Amino acid sequence: MPVRDARFELICRDGRARRGSFWTAHGQVQTPVFMPVGTCGTVKGLTPEMVANTGAQILLANTYHLAIRPGDEWIASLGGLHKFMNWNRPILTDSGGFQVFSLAEKRKINDQGVVFRSHIDGALLELNPKRAVSIQENLGSDIAMCFDECPPFGCSQDHLKKAVHRTLDWASQCLQAQTHPSQLLFGIVQGGTDLSLREFCTQNLVQMGFPGYALGGFSVGETPEQMAQALAPCADFLPPDKPRYLMGVGRPVDLLRSVAAGIDMFDCVMPTRNGRNAMAFTRKGDLRLRNALHRGHADPLDPLCECYCCKSYSRGYLHHLFQTSEMLGPTLVSIHNLHYFADLMRGARTAIEGGGYDAYFNECLVGWGLER
Amino acid sequence: MPVRDARFELICRDGRARRGSFWTAHGQVQTPVFMPVGTCGTVKGLTPEMVANTGAQILLANTYHLAIRPGDEWIASLGGLHKFMNWNRPILTDSGGFQVFSLAEKRKINDQGVVFRSHIDGALLELNPKRAVSIQENLGSDIAMCFDECPPFGCSQDHLKKAVHRTLDWASQCLQAQTHPSQLLFGIVQGGTDLSLREFCTQNLVQMGFPGYALGGFSVGETPEQMAQALAPCADFLPPDKPRYLMGVGRPVDLLRSVAAGIDMFDCVMPTRNGRNAMAFTRKGDLRLRNALHRGHADPLDPLCECYCCKSYSRGYLHHLFQTSEMLGPTLVSIHNLHYFADLMRGARTAIEGGGYDAYFNECLVGWGLER
Repeated sequence: MPVRDARFELICRDGRARRGSFWTAHGQVQTPVFMPVGTCGTVKGLTPEMVANTGAQILLANTYHLAIRPGDEWIASLGGLHKFMNWNRPILTDSGGFQVFSLAEKRKINDQGVVFRSHIDGALLELNPKRAVSIQENLGSDIAMCFDECPPFGCSQDHLKKAVHRTLDWASQCLQAQTHPSQLLFGIVQGGTDLSLREFCTQNLVQMGFPGYALGGFSVGETPEQMAQALAPCADFLPPDKPRYLMGVGRPVDLLRSVAAGIDMFDCVMPTRNGRNAMAFTRKGDLRLRNALHRGHADPLDPLCECYCCKSYSRGYLHHLFQTSEMLGPTLVSIHNLHYFADLMRGARTAIEGGGYDAYFNECLVGWGLER
Repeated sequence: MPVRDARFELICRDGRARRGSFWTAHGQVQTPVFMPVGTCGTVKGLTPEMVANTGAQILLANTYHLAIRPGDEWIASLGGLHKFMNWNRPILTDSGGFQVFSLAEKRKINDQGVVFRSHIDGALLELNPKRAVSIQENLGSDIAMCFDECPPFGCSQDHLKKAVHRTLDWASQCLQAQTHPSQLLFGIVQGGTDLSLREFCTQNLVQMGFPGYALGGFSVGETPEQMAQALAPCADFLPPDKPRYLMGVGRPVDLLRSVAAGIDMFDCVMPTRNGRNAMAFTRKGDLRLRNALHRGHADPLDPLCECYCCKSYSRGYLHHLFQTSEMLGPTLVSIHNLHYFADLMRGARTAIEGGGYDAYFNECLVGWGLER
């Protein structure tokens, strides 16, 4: 099968930071971009319209979770994931690799793939390159990810090397297994914080020729500084004419640092998970809405924010919703946080276009009270 | 203080069933009407826009819960309940009487009022006619309810009589305590299933002159048949030119029976509480969405339903949301159920206008597989 092209356009650069766009079967994506996470085919607590209104261009959904419940074949029989969850913009699905290594019980791994027990009911399941591609084709995502092995931070050099070789072998098998002409398959670079392994892995993947590349194995236990140091060289190894996706990252400051290193795409549960736990991200740092100082507070989370939550509700109301465990609290703060992450990336895009990314980054850091 | 007028208009009758409308400070309400319940200042899991889009004309909120958390004075300081919860249509608040008797711990009741411990933190609180009116004025609801004593079903005749006399005494105190010119205060009739006590209570309340009347003390343990038998005579005691509200009722069949008895207004947690528990009300009876028969089911809850849930999602998706405990499941089925209850009342209004209420009632019963 020919490798499909994402028609990535690198619009401009500002230092290493890149302003780009690419096409998928469900439309265009402007980069840098943050992808909200809809693990089980729903961004927790939000309708798809709410998610779209935060400015989200593309969602991430989880192969592992959806293959276990409700099953990818059920979703295929209902017309695919877009129709199932009522989301008409692009979807990226991970390959399930990360969850097999982080969530599954009693897994057995060999060069063929992984046999594991479901974290839900202990059912025996198998995941391998061919099956990972087949699941993602059943889901009908716009971007599929190769099945990879994601070793934990601090593992032995031998383990790291084996994982890289296995990841390369599986990437090649995934390419061969592809049958859907409109689905983009991204390769995943492993290698931990070992730059020579990262370079080796990247070169081999690029020879296979993917329409996009992801950096896996970051944000798995190393410090933010260790990640930041490795990112720019790892990004430099990648071809400039393809989108670059840093998996599972991260905090607002991590996003801006990574954009500065040349990354285009991100996903993270943080805006929604923290939102459900009463934590709001703002230009001026985090707010914890259970704190009594918000009781009776008439201001919104951020008076300059244009999101539905800030346009309609006071901190006093949000505090009340969390005090009374009302579902609307998690929903409203998730909306605000997703809007904030989308806005942060929109600001980055504009700044890169104007050659002012560095100033934008510094301005955000000052607002958060952080140093670079 | 003069008693305010709800400007109730009795548009037409069909048997005992009434088609009417009345005005509040936040607009007109068409009756018969069902009021969704927003106990703590939010209809659980729904934004106000979602609630409005189900066709809800007026919400109920709870004096007892809001006085405990966040406190009615905090709500007043934030501009009142409408602004606090971002709902611009009418709001009715109950008086807290029912919850004091059903939820509060260690309550002491005498002719002055009730001293009780909060069901949240055990704090010692007091509720009496004056305070109940003051709380509701702080909340700024369009319709306030008199503070009453709601005795349990099956209590002694002596208890029932005392509760009626106390309810009348408190109703008169509530009228005197009123200071807000635009808030309508409704009287509450008690008396259990004892028709002579109900008549006595009604006559005394009507002499005081309220702009609307509620039947309290129903759906508190008696059978639906006992309630149905008492309803028509109780409604007949009430003046025809004022709205009539049956508190805390009920199932769709109870609503239609009560409309047939001459009731105009209803409230109940059932559409939202059952919705959160995966139970959908439909024209063809109840659906339990956790049932495996909905797995992979491509149809909506009701193909003829115009609600957001039915327009956008399959039963298979809803089943999946409940299987994975996703918040969106309770939200979507609550939307459907509220839409169904609003639609049922819309159908009743149209049927009464056309003189076909009896046929409408029968048609609904056939759909549900029930007998009259």
